[in-house]
Amino acid sequence: MIDINQEIGRLDFGKEPKGLYEPIGYTLAGGGKRVRPTLALMACRLFGGKEEEVLPAALALEVFHNFTLLHDDVMDKADTRRGRETVWKKWNANTAILSGDEMLIETYKLLAELPEKHIAKVLPVFNKMASEICEGQQLDMDFESRSLREVTLSEYMEMIRLKTSVLLATALKIGAMIAGADESQQRALYEYGIHLGLAFQIQDDLLDCFGDAATFGKPIGGDIVDGKKTFMLLTAYKEGGEAFETQLNALRTAEKQDKIRAVKELYERLRVRTYAEEEIARLTNRALAHLSSVPQNLETEQLRMLAQKLMNRDS
Amino acid sequence: MIDINQEIGRLDFGKEPKGLYEPIGYTLAGGGKRVRPTLALMACRLFGGKEEEVLPAALALEVFHNFTLLHDDVMDKADTRRGRETVWKKWNANTAILSGDEMLIETYKLLAELPEKHIAKVLPVFNKMASEICEGQQLDMDFESRSLREVTLSEYMEMIRLKTSVLLATALKIGAMIAGADESQQRALYEYGIHLGLAFQIQDDLLDCFGDAATFGKPIGGDIVDGKKTFMLLTAYKEGGEAFETQLNALRTAEKQDKIRAVKELYERLRVRTYAEEEIARLTNRALAHLSSVPQNLETEQLRMLAQKLMNRDS
Repeated sequence: MIDINQEIGRLDFGKEPKGLYEPIGYTLAGGGKRVRPTLALMACRLFGGKEEEVLPAALALEVFHNFTLLHDDVMDKADTRRGRETVWKKWNANTAILSGDEMLIETYKLLAELPEKHIAKVLPVFNKMASEICEGQQLDMDFESRSLREVTLSEYMEMIRLKTSVLLATALKIGAMIAGADESQQRALYEYGIHLGLAFQIQDDLLDCFGDAATFGKPIGGDIVDGKKTFMLLTAYKEGGEAFETQLNALRTAEKQDKIRAVKELYERLRVRTYAEEEIARLTNRALAHLSSVPQNLETEQLRMLAQKLMNRDS
Repeated sequence: MIDINQEIGRLDFGKEPKGLYEPIGYTLAGGGKRVRPTLALMACRLFGGKEEEVLPAALALEVFHNFTLLHDDVMDKADTRRGRETVWKKWNANTAILSGDEMLIETYKLLAELPEKHIAKVLPVFNKMASEICEGQQLDMDFESRSLREVTLSEYMEMIRLKTSVLLATALKIGAMIAGADESQQRALYEYGIHLGLAFQIQDDLLDCFGDAATFGKPIGGDIVDGKKTFMLLTAYKEGGEAFETQLNALRTAEKQDKIRAVKELYERLRVRTYAEEEIARLTNRALAHLSSVPQNLETEQLRMLAQKLMNRDS
């Protein structure tokens, strides 16, 4: 079985000019769980395909994912990522823009290394996903300049589908495609990935409020302080309406920790926590249901465990 | 014969979210001479290929070129481009970054529309060029933070080869490849493009100093005011050494027009103008020489005229 971390470590980009290539190595060395390439390889094995044939696409998915993080950090002015300085902070914004561009090109270089018979069919699938992720990021940025009452929960779900889910879903689909799965089976894995991604993001929103800082890895309440339009906030507005909005506005000048505590109380009172837990369970079950139409083997079991672990995760 | 402007006008990107797609349409509607797609189609006709087979790649080259301009304008903080506000000025930097990313993805969507038999061979050629252009942009940015004595003329030539020439050369090569030209003929057109691009850039550097504002389309002396390390400035330092540098430094606080006038005088005295003209002629002749090894027809004649026109251009 392919060791994806080893393969990522082996990736060889250009050397000169250093200002272009060093930030790429830095970004990829930042770690992360390598979920996307792992899913691509698992999907391939599930359908009895050859892992080596999927490997360039699996690596492309990881490089692409890291490219989006690199550019998102510039756009969000984020100082740290995975406990280290972000590229634009460590170097500068221009370096982050240009190295990110090069990473996106490196993504396509990896796709060009696929067996020739697969390139023409994988490329459009990959491209569609890539555009959707840009659309998701744009919607996310648009939310920031829109008021709470303007953004609906269903718009939020569409945003996280684009920004988070399609990458997981496409990783699975590409693995299945290359292994020769038929369209309906590709579709089943894709839908598993979509629902898994949605559940994952809502779990993330929930943990940001009610998680444990030690296991979550980030300070609790970050989204509350930033006023980010998450599943939690949008559900609270949906449930609490203008009364909730008034209470929230009254906290505008409150101390950080006081605001976090007060908003969490409001969430509890409006049953937002329960709604989130229910939605995560519902989405996870829908993800699991899609697994019933693909071959049942070790990989299917791993995908099932992944979904169940997610439902009970605390980090 | 394909009307490339019409084809560009027909390009249909996504519609929503508007913040993502509108800047792409805006950028492509900015005009420009469409040199790169035109070269790709010319190269195809030269070898008797089918223009329609090259068209997706020709469009990809133009979209890619405009993507680089979009991101370069953010990095260079340029306010105007082709007489209009740049995207980051009209919208904002984040929009310019993300729409640029999407344009790069659209480039690959176009490449995915090539006839299947061509995709796997065109993709690596395109990718190589794309990386080289990023390398060229990085070198250009690096030059800004390096002193005049550190940057050599040959480094400059390498920078403009990467930043300007490889895109022209690759446009020709891809057109030739798809038309079925053999490797040595592809190479000949590629080399024609490289030398044409180098000559073009030096002509641009020359016109920035000694052109006529009305025909050049930009105010004269912009590079001098910005202290940009062009062929002119680097040749002046090569010829004039520290004495030139001292004279240049003395002009640091001079009025804009005085500085331009004084630097132009220094260039004349150091024969920089003559060196530039000689270099343009030499490179143009080398470009022309490469045309002798490809079939001689109407297209070859057009490529010859293009090079000759360049040598005598004033805009």
